Amino acid sequence: MAAVLAKRGHSVALWGHNTDHLRECAASQENRAYLPGIKLPDSIRYIESAKDAVAGARLILVAIPTRYIRTALAGLSLATGPKPDAILSLTKGIEQHSLRFPSEMIGEVTGYPGIVGVLSGPTMAMEIARDYPASITLAHPDKSLAESIQAEIATKTFRVYLSADRLGVELAGAVKNVIAIAAGCAEGMGLGDNAKAALLTRGLTELRRLGRAVGAVDETFMGLAGVGDLYTTCASPLGRNRGYGERLGRGMSPDEAQKDMGGKAVEGYDTAVSIHELAAIKQVEMPISEAVHKVIHRGWKPHDALRELLARDLRAEEDPEGQM
Amino acid sequence: MAAVLAKRGHSVALWGHNTDHLRECAASQENRAYLPGIKLPDSIRYIESAKDAVAGARLILVAIPTRYIRTALAGLSLATGPKPDAILSLTKGIEQHSLRFPSEMIGEVTGYPGIVGVLSGPTMAMEIARDYPASITLAHPDKSLAESIQAEIATKTFRVYLSADRLGVELAGAVKNVIAIAAGCAEGMGLGDNAKAALLTRGLTELRRLGRAVGAVDETFMGLAGVGDLYTTCASPLGRNRGYGERLGRGMSPDEAQKDMGGKAVEGYDTAVSIHELAAIKQVEMPISEAVHKVIHRGWKPHDALRELLARDLRAEEDPEGQM
Repeated sequence: MAAVLAKRGHSVALWGHNTDHLRECAASQENRAYLPGIKLPDSIRYIESAKDAVAGARLILVAIPTRYIRTALAGLSLATGPKPDAILSLTKGIEQHSLRFPSEMIGEVTGYPGIVGVLSGPTMAMEIARDYPASITLAHPDKSLAESIQAEIATKTFRVYLSADRLGVELAGAVKNVIAIAAGCAEGMGLGDNAKAALLTRGLTELRRLGRAVGAVDETFMGLAGVGDLYTTCASPLGRNRGYGERLGRGMSPDEAQKDMGGKAVEGYDTAVSIHELAAIKQVEMPISEAVHKVIHRGWKPHDALRELLARDLRAEEDPEGQM
Repeated sequence: MAAVLAKRGHSVALWGHNTDHLRECAASQENRAYLPGIKLPDSIRYIESAKDAVAGARLILVAIPTRYIRTALAGLSLATGPKPDAILSLTKGIEQHSLRFPSEMIGEVTGYPGIVGVLSGPTMAMEIARDYPASITLAHPDKSLAESIQAEIATKTFRVYLSADRLGVELAGAVKNVIAIAAGCAEGMGLGDNAKAALLTRGLTELRRLGRAVGAVDETFMGLAGVGDLYTTCASPLGRNRGYGERLGRGMSPDEAQKDMGGKAVEGYDTAVSIHELAAIKQVEMPISEAVHKVIHRGWKPHDALRELLARDLRAEEDPEGQM
């Protein structure tokens, strides 16, 4: 996203918690750990103090794993500085126990809940950085605010659609990461594309079921942030949650798989717990998300979780397809 | 499907129009042209006369390209023989000009319109033949007929869901093959998974729009025969329509691409014309299907069709995402 905005002519200050990594990026103008081989625009400034990075910024983009959002943003004292036009969350998750979405957490810790929007959709970073065409949803209830952000960030290949349903867009992103782990498992177990198509279809059904229970707009899930992002997550080998699931499917334990990811954040690992909590409170059946939760946090083997899913599905055959 | 049914213990008679190919299959117990490396069940009988193959059959499965259905079935005089329990169409298409679906054509030429059901969903043949898990939709308005067929054909790995919306299931299958050509084009042009995710999402939208216009059940498109099959078609390299589109995207002309397919039927080639006709009659906007039609039947270059799609999408950004 820093590259997209810098190429559009914006003045971009990039902060990251790992100062060594930031310095490497600055020195090489390349993010070798995450986007190897991509030359980053010269104009990006790499800032080692988060406070300096956001000082006076008109637009702040937050791409911090859910569990670190509060601590990373807490010291910035944004509320005492000049008010930015908007803050955009690129984080997909739900905070455990509080069950807050990233946009809500950002609103709380910055003191600006009214200007926090969400960017979500099928946008694998490696392809975006290469200027391949992609479409994304920008969600904010205030249409004129959303339109003004859209005008600042959209390009011919980075297409930005608007949605007023911030809740639905964030819910879709969170559940997507859990389904991504299931899709990775299927891949690691060698199950093929027919099985992944069924996972996407049934995953969409349980996402819609949860969305209905929390008051999201059903139509959101048929859009880019829903079915679009589920597609990429199931089909592309580039996703981290899917890569994590693939390791589980090949037989690694949850801890071994985490270590093998080389320290890269796997949002779905945490989110599986949050979805488990939220589904229990709302009394919504989410068999795929539950299966992922059991494998990651309850010590189940992927094959046993799959066997339970198949057994359940055989019962569900009695119902008309798609019935929620 | 012959292998699935034979393995379930059914007595299966297999007919095909290419007698040489049929004899090769019988001799080698392998379909080397379409499913190389898969041993077919011993019990399948290879029958050179279609009339003999269907004589006395309780269940008839029709997997014939749309344009050959009438001629292939016309001489069978099914209506004068013992009535089968059911006939299932596995064909995805719409007849040009008449705009009939395969199930309707089969009903007309066999004289048994009341017992024709449809099987459709994310079921790449190569994976089915290998017993990978897969789910499919069986559509027939008569629930008890559908349930009795389901009981005969479902296995633990070949899972069969029921739907009463035969029209929606057939429409989804037909449009899917056209979107598959677009997805193949995107692949051939090197556009990446973000672009394919957008194609699937916007393709689903135009399928739903056409479905609404012809009176299908919207929920059908969120199921296996809709979004599930769109997934496989966009993600799997095994599909024929996608393979055809890929050749177009790499620069072959529609005729060159057809030749390069080695005589394998590409349903979407014909269906693009039928969808073009149907969308015009129903006054439904289907920009992706239209783009495919222009590339295949109007001499447009894929790049020009893509440029028009992108230009249109930039206008559509003004609307809330997902709005139909």
